[in-house]
Formats: sequence, structure tokens, C-alpha cells
Amino acid sequence: MNGNGTWIRAAIVGASGYTGAELVRLLVGHPDVRIEAMTADRKAGQAFGAVFPHLAAAVTDLQLPPLVAVDDVDWSAIDVAFLGLPHGAAHAVARQLPERVRVVDLSPDFRFADPTVYGEWYGTHGAPDLQADAVYGLTEIHRQRIAAARIVGCPGCYPTASLLPLIPLIEAGAIGADDVIIDAKSGVSGAGRALKEGSLYAEVAEGIAAYGVAQHRHAPEIEQAMSVAAGRTVRVNFTPHLMPMNRGILASLYVRLAGGASADDLRQTLAERYQNEPFVRVLAAGVVPATRHVRGSNFNLIGVFADRLPGRAIILSVIDNLVKGAAGQAVQNMNRQFGRDERTGLTQQPLFP
Amino acid sequence: MNGNGTWIRAAIVGASGYTGAELVRLLVGHPDVRIEAMTADRKAGQAFGAVFPHLAAAVTDLQLPPLVAVDDVDWSAIDVAFLGLPHGAAHAVARQLPERVRVVDLSPDFRFADPTVYGEWYGTHGAPDLQADAVYGLTEIHRQRIAAARIVGCPGCYPTASLLPLIPLIEAGAIGADDVIIDAKSGVSGAGRALKEGSLYAEVAEGIAAYGVAQHRHAPEIEQAMSVAAGRTVRVNFTPHLMPMNRGILASLYVRLAGGASADDLRQTLAERYQNEPFVRVLAAGVVPATRHVRGSNFNLIGVFADRLPGRAIILSVIDNLVKGAAGQAVQNMNRQFGRDERTGLTQQPLFP
Amino acid sequence: MNGNGTWIRAAIVGASGYTGAELVRLLVGHPDVRIEAMTADRKAGQAFGAVFPHLAAAVTDLQLPPLVAVDDVDWSAIDVAFLGLPHGAAHAVARQLPERVRVVDLSPDFRFADPTVYGEWYGTHGAPDLQADAVYGLTEIHRQRIAAARIVGCPGCYPTASLLPLIPLIEAGAIGADDVIIDAKSGVSGAGRALKEGSLYAEVAEGIAAYGVAQHRHAPEIEQAMSVAAGRTVRVNFTPHLMPMNRGILASLYVRLAGGASADDLRQTLAERYQNEPFVRVLAAGVVPATRHVRGSNFNLIGVFADRLPGRAIILSVIDNLVKGAAGQAVQNMNRQFGRDERTGLTQQPLFP
Amino acid sequence: MNGNGTWIRAAIVGASGYTGAELVRLLVGHPDVRIEAMTADRKAGQAFGAVFPHLAAAVTDLQLPPLVAVDDVDWSAIDVAFLGLPHGAAHAVARQLPERVRVVDLSPDFRFADPTVYGEWYGTHGAPDLQADAVYGLTEIHRQRIAAARIVGCPGCYPTASLLPLIPLIEAGAIGADDVIIDAKSGVSGAGRALKEGSLYAEVAEGIAAYGVAQHRHAPEIEQAMSVAAGRTVRVNFTPHLMPMNRGILASLYVRLAGGASADDLRQTLAERYQNEPFVRVLAAGVVPATRHVRGSNFNLIGVFADRLPGRAIILSVIDNLVKGAAGQAVQNMNRQFGRDERTGLTQQPLFP
Repeated sequence: MNGNGTWIRAAIVGASGYTGAELVRLLVGHPDVRIEAMTADRKAGQAFGAVFPHLAAAVTDLQLPPLVAVDDVDWSAIDVAFLGLPHGAAHAVARQLPERVRVVDLSPDFRFADPTVYGEWYGTHGAPDLQADAVYGLTEIHRQRIAAARIVGCPGCYPTASLLPLIPLIEAGAIGADDVIIDAKSGVSGAGRALKEGSLYAEVAEGIAAYGVAQHRHAPEIEQAMSVAAGRTVRVNFTPHLMPMNRGILASLYVRLAGGASADDLRQTLAERYQNEPFVRVLAAGVVPATRHVRGSNFNLIGVFADRLPGRAIILSVIDNLVKGAAGQAVQNMNRQFGRDERTGLTQQPLFP
Repeated sequence: MNGNGTWIRAAIVGASGYTGAELVRLLVGHPDVRIEAMTADRKAGQAFGAVFPHLAAAVTDLQLPPLVAVDDVDWSAIDVAFLGLPHGAAHAVARQLPERVRVVDLSPDFRFADPTVYGEWYGTHGAPDLQADAVYGLTEIHRQRIAAARIVGCPGCYPTASLLPLIPLIEAGAIGADDVIIDAKSGVSGAGRALKEGSLYAEVAEGIAAYGVAQHRHAPEIEQAMSVAAGRTVRVNFTPHLMPMNRGILASLYVRLAGGASADDLRQTLAERYQNEPFVRVLAAGVVPATRHVRGSNFNLIGVFADRLPGRAIILSVIDNLVKGAAGQAVQNMNRQFGRDERTGLTQQPLFP
Repeated sequence: MNGNGTWIRAAIVGASGYTGAELVRLLVGHPDVRIEAMTADRKAGQAFGAVFPHLAAAVTDLQLPPLVAVDDVDWSAIDVAFLGLPHGAAHAVARQLPERVRVVDLSPDFRFADPTVYGEWYGTHGAPDLQADAVYGLTEIHRQRIAAARIVGCPGCYPTASLLPLIPLIEAGAIGADDVIIDAKSGVSGAGRALKEGSLYAEVAEGIAAYGVAQHRHAPEIEQAMSVAAGRTVRVNFTPHLMPMNRGILASLYVRLAGGASADDLRQTLAERYQNEPFVRVLAAGVVPATRHVRGSNFNLIGVFADRLPGRAIILSVIDNLVKGAAGQAVQNMNRQFGRDERTGLTQQPLFP
Repeated sequence: MNGNGTWIRAAIVGASGYTGAELVRLLVGHPDVRIEAMTADRKAGQAFGAVFPHLAAAVTDLQLPPLVAVDDVDWSAIDVAFLGLPHGAAHAVARQLPERVRVVDLSPDFRFADPTVYGEWYGTHGAPDLQADAVYGLTEIHRQRIAAARIVGCPGCYPTASLLPLIPLIEAGAIGADDVIIDAKSGVSGAGRALKEGSLYAEVAEGIAAYGVAQHRHAPEIEQAMSVAAGRTVRVNFTPHLMPMNRGILASLYVRLAGGASADDLRQTLAERYQNEPFVRVLAAGVVPATRHVRGSNFNLIGVFADRLPGRAIILSVIDNLVKGAAGQAVQNMNRQFGRDERTGLTQQPLFP
């Protein structure tokens, strides 16, 4: 099972949400990882297979540990902690871990280089000293620094879908960084398993609506990364929409061409940048990416199109929000931190239909 | 039943598609209309209740006529013909009708003032002489001319959702007509009942993708109306997406402010323009329209929001594509042509959940 | 508007749930009814149009009253109270109403002739003295008594779909009352708008499962009515399933033939019994009813089929759980109580697709 | 990659349907298999990644062969042929294969021991001589014979879900074989990718209906296996329903207890029979199986419940129709034919939500 001779012993902190369950799904198929601890808050003490019956067979077959409170984890037996917690909570847990333990955080807590920006959107940063050790975990962009990082702050789902196409184009000066419109469509699992009226089947099925218009917390996260790429502060139009699907994000990006580039040039720039990437695929001219073609997988598909409006282009980018947008990218980052091939445990094909 | 003392005798030409069925649904509840003929092409001879079982009880109770071939209609007993045919076919039928019969066309055949533009997108115009008699049937914009028109070319579903907010703002000079981005999301019924792989449940459910990127036939239709409003030729970014819902269109419009207007000014302009309209409702600041809130009804809900990008605004517009985007607007236009209150037969509330 | 010269002044108690909203949707289209009061518990004080935006236009146009606490209703101005409350709560409200006010209860509180049976499944009956005044509101079966009843206890959605075909056949001795298997499939709105993990989109979409197996509270309600029809106490297999749709119930009934009857005889018996009913339709041999063919309407469609197992038959029965299974049947009963045509306000056609 | 030192060289005949695509998805993750040929009829010549874009990355990475006509396959380089063809077509292909090539047929062509029964439901059997070499591929029941079989006729999806719980109980005499009612609910992928009006999104979404009532072709297949288990000819009530989900079958089985058995006894009998099975899991008392808990996996979950009707029990059985009901069971059978561990290539966990 473990070709390298050493197991990576993992704890999943916050295993009772959809992201936590997705981590379990991926990690039980990872040849080098053993799940040594799983924590939950209100559901501590419950059998994981009762909380997520789709993994009940895996619990039995692999003798996965029960859900415990985070304080009951024996950290001396853990190499990496995946944190699938609400914002604010990850700071507190990260503080109490031995320095030896690597942290892969899926919350927003370690995404912002500037704790002040974090504070504006999420409240006071609970571990500003640790922030200096953290790297923004957009793997394809920051993989060298991720390898060495103790803490990886994994990007949000919307930022992942948006930034993978945007960053290389901004860096190349091929699009205007100040005039990017992101119309994003998301499945419902992105809202988590919390009980909210807006997540009820009858409120979501057979309809679509925008939400958090001009106020969504992923806007500053996208702006941070775009600003780094542009070398100056930029803002973005980010308009998310909630629609009836379990998984998937489509980011439709409307960009202004710059530096004399054409839509074909954008596609070429992205294709070259990502030509050796296992998970980012730039589609041929005319091919439209669809969320259902990445479901359950760690892929990001990108299509580039000329616009009817002169001087503009359209970029379409799709991911599975729970995989490349959360648990998959987290595992990819862990692979990098522990010197494994990034693809390890992430080779499942998309599930369609 | 018929307060005016005169029935409007209607023929539904092309009653075997979703639009045709929706016309039947609405017209059987219209107090002044009697459906005297229904035609179908391949399904001529079948009982309408077998083709659309949800209306089988109405067929029985109201003794609706059987589906016949279009050539078998006795036009001497018809006052108005609703044409729910594929493009190209409506021209041919319109040609053979007695001049006395009013025509409400739901195809693209009579939407383009310039037959050359029609030709570029749909093929040769089959009745350019009749085009001069036709009025573009966006009721709230052209209702005076519709009243007198023999032929009404009802707008497409996407144009209806897009143009109702755009036209007043362009006319007011409050937005830039040259920089409008329309990211539209549509339910599947818009593709009709034709057998296409892309309309299969398993190809649509649990996913979203753009289609017809920069090439959709509703782009020139939107541009025609925007150009009239702007007083010059303009182009538009129109990017439709197909998503898993039966009915509904959400048009997310990204616009550049002009003439010193703010987002609040846009909302105010629209609110004033539509303050007496029964079907167009401009929502209060902060209220987000959702397709599920207009399902089955003739309403258009519009919300206006400030953008994070300076100098821009976001407009969200929703309709039911089969009602306000097709059959409902057609009935509204017929009411106008025959001097009825526009609301007659269209007072059903939305169906939610 | 009001042909009879007298308005029926209605209060909707518990208007913030899906059933309450559906009552509003139907009653605003009822020519003889004026909604004079709407109550909510936690949402009292909110605008109804904010709680249910699909009816916001109706609120404005018809000047519907705001949501108030039940204690703030002026009962002297009310003729009929629709109670859309959780079980137990309806008893308390019914107690405090003037005797002049008719009650149409949509909860289980007045469905059980024997308060002891109610007690076994729902807890102590809070108004056993009023129970004597109550009639079980399965309109087609009990309409004579409903006309005179002060309190109508409207049937549950599953019982309505199951009992309309079963009762005439048991009464005719054409099926065995002791061997009826009801495999029922329901949309999610039946679970209400309460926040439950099992009602979340991601827990319901793209799947199906049984629930409450052999323990669902609608079993004793069905058994009560079947026992009355059979003239002896009978039990039933009732197995409900939750599936991804907003509205609709399909009851698949597996019955043993009795008294020498064939499947054709069952169909004939039902067709005769319901031949003059506006809302119950017995389909021709070979025609399969579908929930989507009754969506939004008060219809019940019934199909009868021979079984491959000798001596058995299959009966398929569909309704919209929020209309014929709740608010529609409630309005039908109110029409009967106030001497109106039962169809008044219920003539909307089903919405498909 | 291939621990055994020998690759299994596979041809997928009929790779352009959902079942074919699912075979590709599973086999590209199988460590011992190389896909050497893929055929399609009308789509021969197209790139597989264009026909199924969700596998386009796999096509590129693994250099999968293009789609060719079946006559263009070099059978000398093939060890096993998976046939994913319509009924009738598999007979013709099987005839022309070298005897050395093992056949795993996913059509009904080799499911019926008696060609006459096949003929009654599907038309004349095209290879009655080969039928003698064929084994019914319900792995858990016939695995010894499957190991030696040249041709495996894989069961239909409904029979798989129904027979895995039924056969051990009939063999044990714990249920009456003559009084089994199977109310089955299926996702839409079971109908394949063919263009049928009934498979359109708008015809399926938000509704449910039975189909093929008392006439579905899976009834005789289920009866064949039940008759073998009972030692006499038996018939069954099999009532399939089509519902809005991509994947999944729930078979709700209503059975009469026999031989003094209780519902608990049934559960115990099944638990013992399947205690060492990797893919069949008998759930603890009170736990309800759901299709979404097996999505994308080869699992079959079974729950057993007492009935309110004395002397009866309820059995709930779920599978993913494209995996355990088709491609997964096919791979499981191939593993058996080639001496591999049955789990090889089938260890993916279910995808939820």
C-alpha cells in the first residue's frame, strides 16, 4: 500500500461537514495516508458511518476511528491536520498544535496575507503570528512555497475556479486587471451542511438567483491574488449565483483584452502555462467546459472564447467545488508538503452522468 | 364568461410544443377566448390530451378541438392565429391567412425590422412584404403600435428578460450602450420538446454550461432593440447558459454607468418607467429576484445593485421563459390587439415551491 | 368579483409555511374570498412578501394584511379560519374561536374520530369536545357532512392520494381490505419549511429513500378510513419515500382482487363513482398517471392495471400534495361549507413542464 | 501497475452509451487492464473525448484508442470483450469472436437459459448454441461458474437490485416466492443515451411515474432467477418507476414471511449469507438504505423491516444502476474470469453529495 515506506498519519478536524466527508472519501483511497483521528463538534461521539452513511462501508472495512472532540486527539501520532472548520475556529486549533504537525486549512483563516483584510470580512484574526508561516494554497501557482510551508491556507472554491485562468493572464499583461467581471454559478454543497432556509431543497430546486451581490467574502480573496499578479491593488466584480446541483462551480469571466492580445492568445498563454499540469486542462478552441465533466474529480477545465464586443474575451472555468475547490486541492497540497507525487490519491475520473 | 359580448376565436398553430401547450393552458383560462383550432405537424390526428396529458382534463371539460394539419383549419372562423412554429415556417403560414386574421407569432420570423439581418442568422426571409406590417411585441415598450398591428412578432425569451431593464436605461442615457454584458441562465423548456442529446435529463441535471458562446441568435435581436434605444448601432455580449430547471430565465446584466448616474438612479429610472405596469416589478434596494418567484406567471422582476467595480452596476432580471418569455406575452399582446385589459387571462400567481 | 353579493372573510392562521403560502396563492384568485388576516408565529411582524417573495406582487396589488400574531386577529370580522399549524397547535386555536367562525384545519388535529388513536400518534388531544363537531374532509367522500360541519379536519396528503381510489373499491367489496400495500413517493414540500437536515437540497437531490418505514403517522389515518369503508378494523402497509421534486405524490397501490372482480372491474367501479367529479379523473386503460400532470392543480388522476401476479391489481394515484393534498382540498371544503360551487377558485390548469 | 505480470487486454464494444462510458471510467482505474479497442456504431471515427468530455483528460493521458467500427477491431490482441450493445446485437458480435476471447455481455442477450423465453420478450435468439456456454452473471450467486465461463450474461439493473436480497431468502424458505411485489425506482441513465421524448429533462424533472406496468422485460429475468431459487415456476409483481436522478435504483420489496421467519430472521439470513462479501452490505435494524449512498460505487445496501401487516416484511435494496447494475458488476465478473481479486478496480467510494 505505502510504497514510500512511511505512512502519513492524518487528522481530519471537522469531519462532519461535506468538506470533511470529502476528505475522508479521498484519503481512504490515498495509498500513503492513514486517517488516525476525526473530530466533530456537536456530533462527537457519533459513529462516522451514521453521520455519512455513504462511507459506512469504508469505516467498517478500514476501521476508521470514531468522531471525537478536537481536544481528545493525540497529536503525537499525527503528521498532518486537515482543518475543515468554520472561519475563526481554525485559528484556535492551529495555535494548539505541536510545531511538527503540518496544517492544511480549508477555512478562510489563513488565506489572507494581511490580517487586517481578514478582519474586515471575517472578524479579528486569531493567530496573526502564525499567518507569516502560511502560504496561499493555490497549488499550481504557489507549489514551490507550499512544499516548504507548515501551514497552507487552501483557497476558497470560487477563487480557485476564477484565479487559475486569471493569474497567468494578468501576469502576462494580456487582460486588464481592473475590469474583470466574474459571474459564478455554484452547486449547493458549497453552503455546507448547516441548516439554513436557503439551502432547503424546495428553496433551491428548479430555480436560480444571485446572492451576496457585491458583498461576498470571496471577492477580497480574489482581489488579493489578482493584486499580487497585477503588482497593484485591483478590485473585481464577483457575482455568485446559487443553483440546483450538488457539486460544481462554473466561473464565467468577462475580461478586457490588453497588450494587443486576442482571445486565441489568451488560450495559448494558458495552454503553455498549464501544459504539464495534471489537473488543469485548457480546452481546444470552441470546446465548452461543463461542471458535470469534472464532478467528483480534481480537474479544472478552461475554455476561452472571443466576444462579440470588440476588445473583450470570455473565459469559462469549471471545477468540482468539493474537490479542486476544497478537499482535492487540500490533498494535492499535502502531497506537495510530504514530497509525494501531486496526483497521489487524486486519480479518480469524473462521474458522469 | 365573455363580458364584451364577443368571443375571440383563436387558432394555435403548432400546439404540440411546450410553447403551444402553454398557450392552451393560458387561453383555457381566458374569459374572452375560445380555442377553435389547434394544429400539429407530425402529431396531427392525435388527441391533444395524449400529447399533453396535463391538459387532458381541460380537453374533456372544454371540448377542445383535436390536433389537425394546418391546411385543415377553417380560417373563416378564426380571429387570431398564434404561431408556435420553428423559424421559417411562420412566414409560410402567415402568407396564406386571410388579412382579417390577426397574427401573434412566437417564432423569430417577424422580429427583425431588417430582413437582411434575419437572413444572416436564420436564412432567407420568406415574407419580407409582410414584415412591414409587423411590430416587435415587447408589450411594455411598444404597446401603442401593437394595438394596431396585424402581425406581432413576439420577442425571444432572452431578449424579453434583457431588454425590459435595458431599454429605459439606454434611452435615459444612464448606462453605456456599448459595454453591456448579459450572462443569462435558462431552464430547459426553452430548447423545446425536440429530441436533442443536449436536452436529455442525464445531460442537463446536476450541471451547468454555457452554449452558443458569442454566436447565439438572440444576440442580434437584443442588439436591434438596443440600437433603436441608443440611436446608433451597438453590439452586446450575450452568453447564455443551460441549467437544470424546467422554466425560468435569469439575465445578469453588467453595465457601465453613464451620465453621472448611480445604481440607485438606475433603480429609480426603472421604477418610474414601470410604476403602472401590472407585470414588470422593480424591487426595492437589496432585494434579489429569483426565477422561482415568477414560475408560471407573466411577471418580470428586476433588481439593481451597485458594483464593487467603480462606475459599474449589476442588474438582475427574471422571467418565466414560457410565460412572459413566450405564451404569456403573446396573450398580453393579443389582449392589446383586441382591446382587452392586458391582464385578462394572465392573473395566475407564481407557483412556489 | 363577488357574484353572490357576500364576501367570505378568511383568516389564514400559520401563513408562513408552504401550506399557508399555497392557501394565499389560491385564495387571492378566489372571486368570493377576501383574506382579512394572516398570522405567523416567529415571523409575525414581517411583511408577507418578504417571507414569500413569489406573492409580493399580490400583496401589493391586493393590499394583503401583514403577518400578525394569532392573538391579534379580530375574529369578529372573520367568517372562516384556515389553520395551517403543527399538530397540537390547532386544538388550542380552535378552542378560542367564536362559534360563528368556520374552521378548515390542515393539521392532523381534527382528523381522528377517536381521540385515543390521535393520542397514540400525536400526544394528548387538546380539544376532544370539539372533535364531535369535526368532519373528515375528504371532499368526494364526505361532502354532504362537510357542508354542515363547523370544523373540517382536512386529510393528510398521503391519505388523500391513497383513499380516493381505495374507499370505493373497499365499499364495493372488489378488493381485500386486509392486504393493501401502499408504496408512496412524495416531493419535499410535504416536509414543510422547517429546518431539517433531511430537507436540505444536498440530502435530497439525485436520490431516493424510504422513511418512517412502518411507523409513519399517516398509516393510522389511512387505516381509520379504510376501516370505516370495510366495516371492520384493518391495517395497511404504508411505505413513504422522499424524492427530489418540489410537489407531488404518487401512491402505488398493490391490492388483492376480491368478489370476483378484475382490474377492469376496479377501473369501471371507480369511473362510475367519480364520473361527475370535477377533480378526480379515472384514466382509460393503459394510461399511466404522472405527478407532473397535476402540478399546481387540484386534480387526482387514477390509473388501474392488471398485475402479472394472478388475483392482484395495481392502482396508481397522483395528486399535488400542496393542492389536492392540502390547500386545494381545504378551499374545496370551504366552498362546500359556504354553499359555493366546489370548483370556485380551483380552476387553474396544471403547470407542465 | 500490473502486479500479475500480465495485462488483460480489453475491447469495449458499444462504448458510446452511458454503460460504455462507465466501463471506460472503471477500467482506466483498473491496474491490470489495458483498453485496446473501443467501438461505436454511428459515432465510429469520432474522438471518444468528444463523445464523453468527462473522460477527455483520460483519453489524452492514457492514449486511449479512437472509436472504431466493430469490424475494425483486431481480435488477436484482445483477451476480453465487454459488449454494451442493444439486445439482439450482442448475439451477432459474440458469434464472430475467436473462442479464446472471453465475453462479458451487458445486454439481455445471454441472460436467459431458455432461448424461448428470450424470444417471447426480445425476439428470436441469434445464438442459441452459444447460450449453453453462458452463465448468468449475478456475481455473488454464481461466482464459481462465472470463473470458468466463456460468456457471462450480466444481469439487468433491476434484477440485480431485486435478486441479491430475494434469492437467499427464497432458498431459505423464509419468504413466499409466489407473492413478491417489487416497486422499483430508477434514475434516468438506465434508459441510455438514446433520444426518446420520455428521457428529456423537461419530461422527467420534478415528477415521477410508473412505466411498463406489468410488462417490463426485467420481469421474466427476475422470475427466471426466482424460479431457480424456488425450484418451481413463479411470477412476480415488478413495477418500475422513472424518477429525476441520474443514477441509482431503489427496489422496495414487499414479501410474505414463510416458514415461521420474522423480519429479524430475514435480516439475519442475509447478513450471514453476505458477511464476507465486499460489495453487498446488510444494514443494521432500523437503518434505511438510500441510493445516494451508493452513487458511483459497486455497493448494494440492503435493509429489512417488519411490516404493519402481520406476516409480511419490507426489504429495501439500493445500487448504482450503472455500476453494480451494469459496468461495475461486469468488471467484477471479468476479475473472476481472469483470476483477479473481485475488488480490483472497484474500490472507489460513493460520491455524496
